[in-house]
Amino acid sequence: MILRILVVAVALAASAGATIRATDALPSESLVVTASSLGQKALNDPAAFDFVEALTTEIGQRLAGTEAHRRAVVWAEARLKAAGLENVHSEPFSFPAWIRGAESADIVGPVPQHLAVTALGGSVATDANGIEAEIALFRTYDDLLAAAPGSLSGKIAVVTQRMVRAQDGSGYGAANPIRRYGPSEAARRGAVAYLLRSLGTDSHRLPHTGALNYQDGAPRIPAAALAIPDAEQLERLAALGPVRIRLLLTPTIQENAPSWNVVGEVKGTERPDEVVLIGGHLDSWDLGTGATDDGAGIAIVFGAARLIAGLPQRPSRTIRVVLFGAEEMNFSGAAYAQAHEGETGKIVVAGEADFGARNVYSVQLPGGAAGSDFGHTLERIIAPLGANVDRRPALGGGDDIRELQKAGVPAVSLRQDGLDYFDTHHTADDTLDKIDPKQLDQAVAVWSAFTYLAAASDVDFRRLAPTAK
Amino acid sequence: MILRILVVAVALAASAGATIRATDALPSESLVVTASSLGQKALNDPAAFDFVEALTTEIGQRLAGTEAHRRAVVWAEARLKAAGLENVHSEPFSFPAWIRGAESADIVGPVPQHLAVTALGGSVATDANGIEAEIALFRTYDDLLAAAPGSLSGKIAVVTQRMVRAQDGSGYGAANPIRRYGPSEAARRGAVAYLLRSLGTDSHRLPHTGALNYQDGAPRIPAAALAIPDAEQLERLAALGPVRIRLLLTPTIQENAPSWNVVGEVKGTERPDEVVLIGGHLDSWDLGTGATDDGAGIAIVFGAARLIAGLPQRPSRTIRVVLFGAEEMNFSGAAYAQAHEGETGKIVVAGEADFGARNVYSVQLPGGAAGSDFGHTLERIIAPLGANVDRRPALGGGDDIRELQKAGVPAVSLRQDGLDYFDTHHTADDTLDKIDPKQLDQAVAVWSAFTYLAAASDVDFRRLAPTAK
Repeated sequence: MILRILVVAVALAASAGATIRATDALPSESLVVTASSLGQKALNDPAAFDFVEALTTEIGQRLAGTEAHRRAVVWAEARLKAAGLENVHSEPFSFPAWIRGAESADIVGPVPQHLAVTALGGSVATDANGIEAEIALFRTYDDLLAAAPGSLSGKIAVVTQRMVRAQDGSGYGAANPIRRYGPSEAARRGAVAYLLRSLGTDSHRLPHTGALNYQDGAPRIPAAALAIPDAEQLERLAALGPVRIRLLLTPTIQENAPSWNVVGEVKGTERPDEVVLIGGHLDSWDLGTGATDDGAGIAIVFGAARLIAGLPQRPSRTIRVVLFGAEEMNFSGAAYAQAHEGETGKIVVAGEADFGARNVYSVQLPGGAAGSDFGHTLERIIAPLGANVDRRPALGGGDDIRELQKAGVPAVSLRQDGLDYFDTHHTADDTLDKIDPKQLDQAVAVWSAFTYLAAASDVDFRRLAPTAK
Repeated sequence: MILRILVVAVALAASAGATIRATDALPSESLVVTASSLGQKALNDPAAFDFVEALTTEIGQRLAGTEAHRRAVVWAEARLKAAGLENVHSEPFSFPAWIRGAESADIVGPVPQHLAVTALGGSVATDANGIEAEIALFRTYDDLLAAAPGSLSGKIAVVTQRMVRAQDGSGYGAANPIRRYGPSEAARRGAVAYLLRSLGTDSHRLPHTGALNYQDGAPRIPAAALAIPDAEQLERLAALGPVRIRLLLTPTIQENAPSWNVVGEVKGTERPDEVVLIGGHLDSWDLGTGATDDGAGIAIVFGAARLIAGLPQRPSRTIRVVLFGAEEMNFSGAAYAQAHEGETGKIVVAGEADFGARNVYSVQLPGGAAGSDFGHTLERIIAPLGANVDRRPALGGGDDIRELQKAGVPAVSLRQDGLDYFDTHHTADDTLDKIDPKQLDQAVAVWSAFTYLAAASDVDFRRLAPTAK
């Protein structure tokens, strides 16, 4: 999961108060019965956990641009076909693949100590011998931004601002600029490298990676995340006197690397050209096995689509499952939106499961839909599962559908409990054992109910939703 | 903390039922008042936390035999002197120092995957290119022991038995042979290398190191611990078919490396030749900064001795603080006992704080003392601190005092809450942030009360205690 929805969020928030219109037809009682029974069935269906167990065991990490990701694409196509989905195929695109190299950091003075670090995705390499420099430590990002031009000349800038633990991930959203833009901000002030306290809520020696965005007009300097105990160790040492660090990072970029968005569908019976798009991302970071980010997410939408595909009577609209191919490096959503530009008006709603493996506690519908007949009906179905329908509209539905959303596609957000998501997010610790099958099943249940109801009913979120440009 | 007390435990258990004799004089009320006020003072004394904060920040890891440990010895002498202790000095000994090298493990088939491993202390190295072999996986240690001679020929033996979480560390004691003796047992059956699921209770990609003991008559094969998620990944993969692993370990041994037991005393006023020995170990494993193992332990005994040294009226017996120098590799306790062989009869009681940084919930006194006047008085003092006096006698008091105990020195065991101790024990995660200052202070309080009372009263544990040979 990455989070870069602030611009969209602000744009949509302006129209979030749009009047609720109750013009959609009430979903029929038979649809409600089917959606409810799908939800109940999901609670005891091992398919989603089996999916993520097999993916993380048989493939493991699947950084976009690596051979492992290519294997994952073949694996995923076979799984979608075996689950009864149709039109299974992969849509290729190319992108500059960033591949991790060696990475290490050591305090060389006042006394030698090892530091646990990991390069940020997209970081340039250091010299082969590494960079050795004194650090300039800032306890907040604002302190860095307040530093005068040139004041960091020749230094390694270090930002140790804490990230807040929050169920909805808002702590990550707030801290995200520290990783995204910190390297360029530090470089503008003369820094030769950049370290940040990992964007995470744990206390382990496992640093959190994630992509940076170099800004135009700033030198590109190597950048890495410190494990949280290591950031705190630097705070203590820096309070005692000058600290020198040697940093070594040797990542490489492969231009025009191939990736693929993997697609499978449950074809609609009556309005097959209208699409309910549900997705997640198949790629992962390379440190762990991508179990919660985003093996769980694609397992959830897979599990939901599989259950619906197995119904005696399929819904009228097409359900399209998209397993995006380069989310962590920000490329697959744009590639998908570009390839499907002509089809945008046919996508009734889009949602992405990319916030871990825990239960869905709340559904945010597209603007105008929360208080509609659809919203009321959905709430009846998911309340017994332990989820509600939020009165606030969805602002963002996931990074891969952001470009679709910008083009006018209504977004849904099925909000999962993320209180501990950032304990392991983007670390070596993102492994299968972090998934509770029962909570995963609950998420599948809510996704099944929503997806079925959206595809089988007459609701038209496009009409209800405010248009965002 | 290491645990190798089974032999001693069994020997002492046989005499644990010794009759309680109430022949010791009741500690005077003024001693009780002083011991109680020491305990209360400790609850708000920052000295112990400051000690471990400075040690782990300014020195960091201090594996015996490394330059960092040498720095720690100098640092510790200065701290003991500054705290008002007398006769501060270091007692040298030599030992074969094991120094970690490179370490990595990767699954090479069925699909490439990285594994998080760490060499066991004392392990021999692999070839410079590593060892590549198929694994033979055993879910229990008994399954390995049941394997026929020669049946593991050419294979890497893997044992994935789980360790039980227990407040008193009994899960570690029970699992300890898997690490200590597993390498030799596997080698006897033909294995070329040995991997075990880390002896730990966490679920992080941070393997737990710890020493092994090669047995006579078995080939010495390289041995390492897998992080717990990695052991579980191997279980899943091995269930699907053959798994091949490449293991690389390049540790070295430096024979006759120097180490030191650092000593400081609060000289007794009336019976200075009678000694209450309290200790911990200054050395640590090299992966973390040795905060809970055993920075916390030596901080606790330091904090207790410092408070007692600051009293207007010091106790009649000598309190001796010993910071042992090579506990993790099992050398400092024997070195100390040998150097002090002639003094054994003068040590009234010995205790070691080597079980983390949490509160003391129970004190086990030497055999025969629990129900004595001393025991009753101690209970009055520590009950308000949240600790009791166990009716069962101490069996082991710590690895460094095991040899003293064998020579007849009575041992005391101040039992700390170890429910989460093995989450970070012997890993890179053993860092300062794992210490709760309030719990550490409580431990100092109980140690202060016990140590003072033992040194100021007339209790003679040597007379009460059953003799172990």
